[in-house]
This record gives sequence, C-alpha cells and structure tokens, in this order.
Amino acid sequence: MVVAVDANGADLGPAEVAAGAALAAERGARVLLFGPAEQLGQLPEGVEVVDAPVSIAKSADPVRAVRASPESSIVQAAAAVAAGRADALVCAGGTGAALAAGLFEIKRARGIHRPALALPLPLPAGTVTLLDVGASVEARREHLVQFAFMGAALAQTVLGVARPRVALLSNGQERERGTPLVVEAHEDLARRAAGAAPFEFVGNVEGMELLAGAADVVVTDGFTGNVALKLIEGVAQSMMGAVRRTATASLRGKLGGALLLPSLRAFREQIDPETQGGAYLLGLRSLGVIPHGRFSREGFARAILRAGTGARERIVDRTHAALEDAGALRARPAAPAGGASEDEGGARAPERKPPSTSVQDASLPAQ
Amino acid sequence: MVVAVDANGADLGPAEVAAGAALAAERGARVLLFGPAEQLGQLPEGVEVVDAPVSIAKSADPVRAVRASPESSIVQAAAAVAAGRADALVCAGGTGAALAAGLFEIKRARGIHRPALALPLPLPAGTVTLLDVGASVEARREHLVQFAFMGAALAQTVLGVARPRVALLSNGQERERGTPLVVEAHEDLARRAAGAAPFEFVGNVEGMELLAGAADVVVTDGFTGNVALKLIEGVAQSMMGAVRRTATASLRGKLGGALLLPSLRAFREQIDPETQGGAYLLGLRSLGVIPHGRFSREGFARAILRAGTGARERIVDRTHAALEDAGALRARPAAPAGGASEDEGGARAPERKPPSTSVQDASLPAQ
Repeated sequence: MVVAVDANGADLGPAEVAAGAALAAERGARVLLFGPAEQLGQLPEGVEVVDAPVSIAKSADPVRAVRASPESSIVQAAAAVAAGRADALVCAGGTGAALAAGLFEIKRARGIHRPALALPLPLPAGTVTLLDVGASVEARREHLVQFAFMGAALAQTVLGVARPRVALLSNGQERERGTPLVVEAHEDLARRAAGAAPFEFVGNVEGMELLAGAADVVVTDGFTGNVALKLIEGVAQSMMGAVRRTATASLRGKLGGALLLPSLRAFREQIDPETQGGAYLLGLRSLGVIPHGRFSREGFARAILRAGTGARERIVDRTHAALEDAGALRARPAAPAGGASEDEGGARAPERKPPSTSVQDASLPAQ
Repeated sequence: MVVAVDANGADLGPAEVAAGAALAAERGARVLLFGPAEQLGQLPEGVEVVDAPVSIAKSADPVRAVRASPESSIVQAAAAVAAGRADALVCAGGTGAALAAGLFEIKRARGIHRPALALPLPLPAGTVTLLDVGASVEARREHLVQFAFMGAALAQTVLGVARPRVALLSNGQERERGTPLVVEAHEDLARRAAGAAPFEFVGNVEGMELLAGAADVVVTDGFTGNVALKLIEGVAQSMMGAVRRTATASLRGKLGGALLLPSLRAFREQIDPETQGGAYLLGLRSLGVIPHGRFSREGFARAILRAGTGARERIVDRTHAALEDAGALRARPAAPAGGASEDEGGARAPERKPPSTSVQDASLPAQ
C-alpha cells in the first residue's frame, strides 16, 4: 500500500510532515510525499518526494482553489490516488481543501450521498467513533443512515468490533426525541437494523451515555458533530488545567499532585488526539485520513500508518457491500445530457462543475 | 416576591421539594407550594400549601396533558403566576410540562417569538450562560437573535455583567462558518450590535473558547444546546471518575489522591449544577426556573431563591425594553377572526389551540 501525503498546511510546516513520513517509512509504510521539495530534507527509502510547492491549505474557498490550482500539492496528491499511484490520501492542511480535492479527483464512492469525517475518540470507557465531525454542516435523513453504515464498517475493519453498536446523538434517549431529521433517521435505522444491517442500532444517546461507551459508533450531522467534538476536547483540557491548578495551589496540593502526576499524564496521553492519528475521510472511492494541522511528526506518522492499514482493510469496499446488502445505496441518477453523471465518474473533466456536496472548511478541532 | 412551586416530578419525591421550600423560606423566600398536601409535611411560615396531587410531570405529550388536566399541580402553579398570586414559577418536574403550562397560562411575553431555557454554567474561567438548552429543538434566525437579547438581559440583571459579551456556538470562528441558520443569525447580530444592543457581539465560539470564557452568553438552538450541555457535564463527570480511579490504582496514587481530594471536591462542587439552582425559563410574561429533577432540597431551595431574585430584578421587563430599543420585537400579528391573538393573550380560553411553539420534553441534563 502506498499513501499519498500532502505536506503543506501543517502548523509546524512541511518539514514536520516529512519527518512524520520518514517515521512511518521506518515502520513499514510507503509514502508519496507532495510538497516543497527544498524544505523536505533528506528522506529514507520508502518515501518518494514530488515537488509541489503550491499550497491551498488556507484557502477561504477550497472548492474554487481546487479547480483553479491543479498544480497544488493536495490536488496532485488526490490525483495520484485517483490514478492508482497511491491507495489512500493523507492531508496535513485544511479539511476543506482535502475534501474538495478528494471529491474532485478521487470522487465519491458509488452509491454514497456524501462523505463524512469519522473520528475514533479514545475515551476512558473505550473507543467511540463519532461521525460526521465536519465534512458538511447540514445533513438529510439518507445521509445519516449512510453515515451509520460507514461508521460501522470502520469500527469493524479497523477497530476490530465484530458487531458495532450504532447510536444517534440526540437531546434525549426516547425515539421521539430530537430534531425532525434525527427522528426520521431513528425510524429508518431501526427498520434497517431489524433487517440485514451489519450493526446493532441502540437508539439515541446523550452526552453521558456517549462518554460511558454506550455505543461504538455515534452518528450526527457535521455541525453538531464538530461542535460536540470541540466541546469534548475543550472540557477535557480545561479539567486537566483545573486539576493542575489545584495541584499547585497549596503545599498539600503540590505534594498530592506530584504523586498523582505520572498517572494523570498517562491518562491525558490516552485521550490525546495525536496518539490516534486523525480523522477518517469516508465516502470517497479511496480512503482519506486527516490529521490535526497542529500535530507533530509522531501524529503525522500515525496518520500515514492509519491510512495504509485502512486501505489494506478495504474499508471502502466493505462499506459499499454492507450498504448494498441493506438497500441503502444511492439510486443511480439518470445520466445528464452530454456525459456520465458526476456520481459515476468517468474520465477527468476539469471543466465540469465540482461535486454538489457542501464543502466548508470545517476544520478539525483546534486546527 | 412570591414564588409558585410545583412539587411534583422530582426524583426524590414531593417531600424533598417541600423541604427545599422550607429552606428557601428560612432564607427569606415566600412560597406557594402546589403538590400532594399529605406528603409535604409540616412547613414553616412563608410556605403556603395548595393541595394539588395530580402530576403530569412524566407525560409523553405535555401539551395535551396541560390542556386535559387544569387541576394538575403545574397548571395550577402557572395559573397562580398568571393571576398575579405569585411572581415567578419553579417546576421540579419535566421541562416539557413546565413549558407547556407556562405558555398556556402565563403566556409568551409581548414581542417574544419563543421561550428559551438559559443555564448559567459555572466554569473554571467564569460563568457562561448557554441558551437555548432545550425549550425547543429547532430555531429560526429571529429566534436566535432574541435569545441573544434574553441571555444578555439575564447576564446583566442577575449575574451583574455590565455589558455582556454574546457569542454564537458554531463549528468555526469565522463569520461564514456554521449552518445557514448560524450564518444568518451572525449577520443579524453583528448589525444590531453595531446599533443599540445592550451587549457586545463577539462572533462565533467553538468548544475551547466557550470553556475558556470568551463570552458571557452563548446562543444556540435548543437541540445543539441540549446536546452540548450534556456533553460538558458528561466529560466533566467522566474526567472526575478517571482522576478518582487514577488516585486509587496504586499506593502512590492513593497517597496523592488523599492529599488532593479536598481541593478537587471544592472544584467539583463549583461546577455542580445543583449549587446553581437550575435553568431560567425566559420569554414568558413572568420568570420561570427549572431545577434538575434529580436535585436534593438544597438545589430546590436555590432554584426558589433564584426565581425570587430574578423576578425582583425584572428580567422580563428589561429584556422587553432592550428588544424594543433594538427593534427586535416580534411584529404584532393581525388578530385572528374571533378574538385576541395568542400572542397578545387576553382571557383564558381553554378551548383555544395551544401555542405553536414546539414543546418537546427536552429535559435538563441527567433528568
């Protein structure tokens, strides 16, 4: 498996991503690295550099930037995946650019309405995969239903959960709770889970149950998911800060803090997003992984390894098979006059309109 | 000031609410207590009991229950406020029943589109008032705009913030981030804040800034607000649990934990919702306060005192004046054939349709 990596856009610069690629190569990965060659330094065997100094990671309008800059590192990296030169995509820059380039070059997987960003959260009670954490800001019922299948396939293949428990994030556990969207999606998922779905639908979860590990996969729209994710990280960080302050406010506290600190550090590391490698971009014809822009080399290395493993585990094919079995694939749209439909792909046609998915630069937390 | 209290619906039963009323009376409150008289025990001066054993707190359809059960404790309590026998309402039972009874009896304040539940969160960085935390599940632009004014009036009058900083909860700080609803509300608030608004509009906040106290008031729709609130409480509780486990996992940890525990307990108490007394129900012609159903007597006492203080501070009048100055009041609707419009109130007419606000039993956290 070869992973195409866009080195532009990281907070610590392209050299830090290159260092991550080197670490990943040492651990067995093969990397095609797109970025400004002169900044990437000497790299070991297993990392091939493609000089691509143009970055659109900070563009305010990623869709337009992707169309206008075919020479940019992210578009070249995505094109390499589309052409079969690589098996998965890792983008250290903005989510928006990665999503736009992915939709434009790699294209949506057959039968998928819309991509989603899925983030496995390492919680004390176990790993909970939350999706969508920000690929788009609004969703329809059929999107949430597909997110459930996509999240379940991820939990099965990569996280090794035989029959994932899938839930909807809502403001109450009862099936009539939530926005009309959530209530509709609940009905639909309950019906499908009674059929051929490869997961158990456990209904709605609220904050406390989510944290307590009541589900392996929690489905929500990209706006709520992004807000939720950042709150989880914000509260965890502010609690750690409060504990730290408590542990320095008095002599007694200092003594206690000194004794407790090593175990608290281990706990903090456990819930640190960098130890996980980033979010999965699901719903394209190949897998994407989006690390935090603020990661260091270790985080980027893990993102690259995560992408390679995911490609090897064939998440895209498995998701598709499960959706097909459950009759949850998007109906094949009528071919528009003059060519193959956007959903069915075909030869690259740069003059064509970009895919209709609402691409916002919904960045990952703290990015 | 007299506070009408519905004693039905609390997890620990009506007697616990009565004990809270007794505590509040000892601290100067005057209470009109509606509940099953035989369970309420001996009560001190300052607490007047009205025997009202019928409870609709657990009703799955609160709007229908309110219309069908004028003898229920919550409807009687709300009617007492509407009739001027009390100045504010406290309901220990479900939010849904309180909201439905409030809309039916007390009625919406003039010019207000929709009530909101506002919860001051005692965070380490200071108090942040989040609204709506679940009075309704969906919102329109004009609702969010009014929530901003309502929250600002609350922060000014009750929390003593001279010029509150108001923010929108979103998935990014830039003004173009968020759902179309959030983007529209952002534009509207930015425009009004440049005019006569009694608050500073600081734009969008995400989880980390919310926790860091970047705003005094954070506005969102009731679905997102309820999900967010429960996540904040869930993460805080699960972190405390993790610290506790860390502090019992080894001899070293035990020693550290024992030294640190007293200060951690103080911190936990600081962020405990019960020490605050519950959420404010804003947007009716009189103030409501909704404690957690799981509170003990101390929490109910604080809710009653909070309601009395809020009524004395004339939150409703102040909100109305600020909205009027800013031109953000709801336009007076044309009177429907056959009587005064629902918004303008008038004599009680039980056969009339209930108010159109979407009442869901959007319970407070952990209720």
